[in-house]
Amino acid sequence: MDIEYMKRAIELSKQGIGYTNPNPLVGAVILKNNRIIGEGYHEYYGGPHAEINAFSNVKEDVEGATMYVTLEPCSHYGKTPPCAKAIVEKGIKKVVIGMKDPNPLVAGKGIKILENNGIEVVAGVLEDEIKKLNEIFIKYITTNKPFCIMKTAMTLDGKIAAKTGDSKWISNEKSRRYVHKLRHRVTGIMVGIGTVLTDDPRLTTRLENQRGSNPIRIVVDSSGRIPIDAKVLNIDDDTKTIIATTKRINENKVKALEEKGAEVLITPIKNNRVDLKYLIGELGRRKIDSILLEGGSTLNYAALNEGIVDKVVSFIAPKIVGGQDAKTPVGGEGKDFIKNSFKLKDINVKRFEEDIMIEGYIRKEE
Amino acid sequence: MDIEYMKRAIELSKQGIGYTNPNPLVGAVILKNNRIIGEGYHEYYGGPHAEINAFSNVKEDVEGATMYVTLEPCSHYGKTPPCAKAIVEKGIKKVVIGMKDPNPLVAGKGIKILENNGIEVVAGVLEDEIKKLNEIFIKYITTNKPFCIMKTAMTLDGKIAAKTGDSKWISNEKSRRYVHKLRHRVTGIMVGIGTVLTDDPRLTTRLENQRGSNPIRIVVDSSGRIPIDAKVLNIDDDTKTIIATTKRINENKVKALEEKGAEVLITPIKNNRVDLKYLIGELGRRKIDSILLEGGSTLNYAALNEGIVDKVVSFIAPKIVGGQDAKTPVGGEGKDFIKNSFKLKDINVKRFEEDIMIEGYIRKEE
Repeated sequence: MDIEYMKRAIELSKQGIGYTNPNPLVGAVILKNNRIIGEGYHEYYGGPHAEINAFSNVKEDVEGATMYVTLEPCSHYGKTPPCAKAIVEKGIKKVVIGMKDPNPLVAGKGIKILENNGIEVVAGVLEDEIKKLNEIFIKYITTNKPFCIMKTAMTLDGKIAAKTGDSKWISNEKSRRYVHKLRHRVTGIMVGIGTVLTDDPRLTTRLENQRGSNPIRIVVDSSGRIPIDAKVLNIDDDTKTIIATTKRINENKVKALEEKGAEVLITPIKNNRVDLKYLIGELGRRKIDSILLEGGSTLNYAALNEGIVDKVVSFIAPKIVGGQDAKTPVGGEGKDFIKNSFKLKDINVKRFEEDIMIEGYIRKEE
Repeated sequence: MDIEYMKRAIELSKQGIGYTNPNPLVGAVILKNNRIIGEGYHEYYGGPHAEINAFSNVKEDVEGATMYVTLEPCSHYGKTPPCAKAIVEKGIKKVVIGMKDPNPLVAGKGIKILENNGIEVVAGVLEDEIKKLNEIFIKYITTNKPFCIMKTAMTLDGKIAAKTGDSKWISNEKSRRYVHKLRHRVTGIMVGIGTVLTDDPRLTTRLENQRGSNPIRIVVDSSGRIPIDAKVLNIDDDTKTIIATTKRINENKVKALEEKGAEVLITPIKNNRVDLKYLIGELGRRKIDSILLEGGSTLNYAALNEGIVDKVVSFIAPKIVGGQDAKTPVGGEGKDFIKNSFKLKDINVKRFEEDIMIEGYIRKEE
């Protein structure tokens, strides 16, 4: 067992980022006589699995070979026949697996098929890294709810805009490019109506040298205030826009929005606003496995309070704008005491030139 | 020339942190036949210089030896006779210098004495590192004004307290310990009256396993609202407390404060408050070479706006408290546009367990 081959399989799997949702990222390497004879990865949703792609790329006999694959081979007939069976049929001798499948339909069954057919199996290699890479898939497959990433960008004194509302630009170009990578990675992007009214963003993915897929745009707009000429309603792509609202919306507005091609999703009213927990369930049912929440202060607090946020990605620019009335990343009512804060774990810090990015996961147990 | 010896001299110099102000941190190593035969550092303000201490610690003949010293040896009669002369008299053959002396009284003169006496001189070794270590000394010796470090601690959503004012604890123990190291390092610590009224801090240095020197306490209190029983007025140590105020203070309050041993420093009124620029000049005249500004939102903005801040040290705790009315590190009036922000340079990021510390220097040219 050589960890380098698993690293290679992980690298391969990353090529699927943004294209496989709600399926996992998977890479596979086939090895014979200490030489890689085939490689493959899960390229797009509904496409052949990594193992099958790896077999397709081999030009020689795979009998007796070893396979490194980042995810336990599947055992069920889904959109494709089970990979475990294909591995057995091809005469593979040993399979090294990254993480076991978190999908309750598959968990452990693929490994059992392999072992029952006399194949040596090693599992759990670089599992933590692979789990992190597949955090979206894991959340979605186990809960049927989207993995929600709250993204914020603030000054070193905690402002998302100057007191006038001006926010151009807090973070630098490199940080903003990374945000477009995040948008490419997720299936949905969510903002509040406040952001639409203030910034009128497009919420599209703009990547250099790469066709980024645009995420589904979700606007939380409890009373249906979105202007019909808002950019998110007038983008010429095959990605839809969902207006999450309540019965407070005007009937004619619903019609106008639907004419624009938007979906109007009516949720119950909670705290006088869209019920975010209900909404997130509905989005999960629409196969949206992941959401980038680029909310304003109010929506961000509501999302945290409703427990729908899984991860926080916070950009901090080394500048200070001041202003006691300038907005901060998370507003709303707020907690009374620091000890009742939402706490993050598994903190990771990255630099984008002078900008600092802090990411972490919401501790749910507390 | 071996850079390792300069590193050793730098390490030695750090032992003087907190004790040499307003003098620099200096370390020296004497080398003969590739063997260290003497070491010394500037131990406390007014005490012998590093070179002299190194000579004192040598047990053998130093003739023909090489000296590594972090700062250019002095050439003038101050509290001690000039080190350059002592080096010549001892028969040192070569001197390797870290940074040239920024003190206009000395700059280049020490090197000239050495060279005029046939000593080989190499200067500028690890200069950037040594300059950073002596940033306080450099600022003070060239401007006669204290080097001002603004220290803040906030949540990941930019709050220095919950909306109720509760701030216990935002940063973790390790971060707070580091703040006590900062307090030990500087000569003065400055807060606003708001902080005294809310938190009633002691502003003392509490270090484990080390006697930390307490900084001079400076309270900016424009109208003299400080209660006579405030902790900063009732600490039994030999460090004084300065109340920076204006003529708006009541005469009797002045007397009461002076009876408590505090100095009442009256400044002109600027924007209805203490004139911070004037104050900083007065503090410089009192040999205060450095200030840790642990201000609240309002004082921090005023200090930035008056241009008295040199460095920002910002602790960020991975927790989110929310609250649109909760305070942020820098409040006040604030800039209208992000592009007019105070910008930081030379950003450095440190981790204190899960806390993140971002430090940088205010760009003054812009």
